[in-house]
Amino acid sequence: MIDDAQRTVRDLGEFGLIDALRAALPPETVAGDRLRLGIGDDAAIWRPTPDAEQVITTDSLVEGVHFRLDWTDWASLGHKTLAVNLSDIAAMGAWPRLAVLSLGLRGDERVADLERFYHGLGRLAAATGTLIAGGDIVASPTALTLHLTALGDLPDGQALTRAGAQAGDLIAVSGTLGAAAAGLRLLSLAPASPQRRATTALALIASHLRPEPRLRLGHVLRQHGASAAMDLSDGLLGDLPKMLQASQVAAEIDATAIPVAAAVRALFPDDWFALATRGGEDYELLFTAAPPVMATIVSEAAVIGATVTTIGAVQPQVPGHPRLTLRQPSGEAQAIEGGAFDHFRAGY
Amino acid sequence: MIDDAQRTVRDLGEFGLIDALRAALPPETVAGDRLRLGIGDDAAIWRPTPDAEQVITTDSLVEGVHFRLDWTDWASLGHKTLAVNLSDIAAMGAWPRLAVLSLGLRGDERVADLERFYHGLGRLAAATGTLIAGGDIVASPTALTLHLTALGDLPDGQALTRAGAQAGDLIAVSGTLGAAAAGLRLLSLAPASPQRRATTALALIASHLRPEPRLRLGHVLRQHGASAAMDLSDGLLGDLPKMLQASQVAAEIDATAIPVAAAVRALFPDDWFALATRGGEDYELLFTAAPPVMATIVSEAAVIGATVTTIGAVQPQVPGHPRLTLRQPSGEAQAIEGGAFDHFRAGY
Repeated sequence: MIDDAQRTVRDLGEFGLIDALRAALPPETVAGDRLRLGIGDDAAIWRPTPDAEQVITTDSLVEGVHFRLDWTDWASLGHKTLAVNLSDIAAMGAWPRLAVLSLGLRGDERVADLERFYHGLGRLAAATGTLIAGGDIVASPTALTLHLTALGDLPDGQALTRAGAQAGDLIAVSGTLGAAAAGLRLLSLAPASPQRRATTALALIASHLRPEPRLRLGHVLRQHGASAAMDLSDGLLGDLPKMLQASQVAAEIDATAIPVAAAVRALFPDDWFALATRGGEDYELLFTAAPPVMATIVSEAAVIGATVTTIGAVQPQVPGHPRLTLRQPSGEAQAIEGGAFDHFRAGY
Repeated sequence: MIDDAQRTVRDLGEFGLIDALRAALPPETVAGDRLRLGIGDDAAIWRPTPDAEQVITTDSLVEGVHFRLDWTDWASLGHKTLAVNLSDIAAMGAWPRLAVLSLGLRGDERVADLERFYHGLGRLAAATGTLIAGGDIVASPTALTLHLTALGDLPDGQALTRAGAQAGDLIAVSGTLGAAAAGLRLLSLAPASPQRRATTALALIASHLRPEPRLRLGHVLRQHGASAAMDLSDGLLGDLPKMLQASQVAAEIDATAIPVAAAVRALFPDDWFALATRGGEDYELLFTAAPPVMATIVSEAAVIGATVTTIGAVQPQVPGHPRLTLRQPSGEAQAIEGGAFDHFRAGY
């Protein structure tokens, strides 16, 4: 047994740590009338005035942990630094407004490369109406670090959270899953490997390097009354349990209904299912809605060119029963453990 | 001469880099109706509604660059991580509302130490009414990195900036200067050195480890009509030229008027003036105001226990003449070069 005073971050893990650190703060600093949602969700919800809501989110990318400069180009890295934050804003049904960026630089980076980073970031900012409002540049001698905080707002109504799923709701995801995880796997293979030389390889790698935040779909979800939403960053089977936990419900999903990118199945016949459900970095939206609302969302999503696939249903939670059940093609029901990606227990 | 394509961050320096990167962004992403102030100041000013203003600031602390774990205790580090951001908010005359924190952890940190970090941060948050709204925890294998973004607001009126100084205004600073730089110097000396054993040493070290954001004074400045303000992070002679540049004015200050902490003079008889004017990390407020306004500010500052010292006057800028002149005790006028601390040209 580990002495409490000697316990390290790695012993406790990322999720235990968040709870411990939240508990170390005075209670009046973690909740307040104007803070509708604080520590624990992907973004905070703040009321600048009694009638308006803002969402605030922050994400960091660390060289060697979240990216490798020999695997990404600089413009894609700039795109992704903003995109992963905008994905959190999309999941809440908000519009991004501004971002501040803190760069930790070794000092030997080429200015031309950083300009490419800003081109990639700026192109996505312009396309999404996000202002780059400033930031901070500091020395970070051992690793390039990128920290972005984004602010979104909702001129009318309330932000979507992961806490609103109700028994009887349907569960759906946007797009297809597994492409980003497969892209990352491809980058780790030798350039001459058969998979790397497949015609679909570049598209999968692009899914990893340049995720697209689902902002318009998030707006559709909120407008038409989805009950809960979050973005998929840690894989469907890592993230869905978080939503169920936050909503205090259970769910069953159908393995055959999960929309796996076809190229992932083709290139990775042995572990396409793990890539699609545990691989992470999909940045698609996972959401729930009552059946008539879901029908509306599916057709409205089509109008904006987004695909939505229903994969299961929300159930009441029953003490002693699994929170998430995966129905296998055989008909067998498999209980799913949370097991989200833990930054201190796995590597890049 | 360096080939442009090969130029590195270190070749260009921090301030040239900010300009280059700003220029790499599409123009519509760096300015907008609702963004009163963007890249270039310490904080951005955003209008969530037509009548309200928010200020947003971000600052990063990197192990080995901004702090050393053998020189600081964890609670002080938590305090400072929040304090340096709140200082930017104080300089704008705003009140802090919430903060999001991104921690980059190696994984071998003791949880008990991180709890101490949160205690220090939480105590300052509670004292200043700042909510800790969330954040992000990532792996940062080579150095502990701390990135905080703080949001402040102004229920009434406009935020102070560094761009409003007018010829004829007086220039003042709060508190005394040089203590934090002297404290840092002391930490670098052997524990048995005479300076480290001086009775004033601990207070100077505390000034370095636990700066106090001047929030109430910032509010007084804004309420009574100071024309420009900024916080002193890079030393008076590094920061004042930035204010003069932003305001398009010149200034003369009186060397004998600069309020140097007495212990700094006593312990460092050879370079107390450099510590007080170039040392940095004072986190006092530097501001300008018309003479009758300054008189009011001086007396209102006394009411809240803050000291304010007038050190010079703003002058019209004259092409070919120095932007900042320092009047020496001998009566000699010395032109001051900007020379702010550049993170890529100096070490901790």
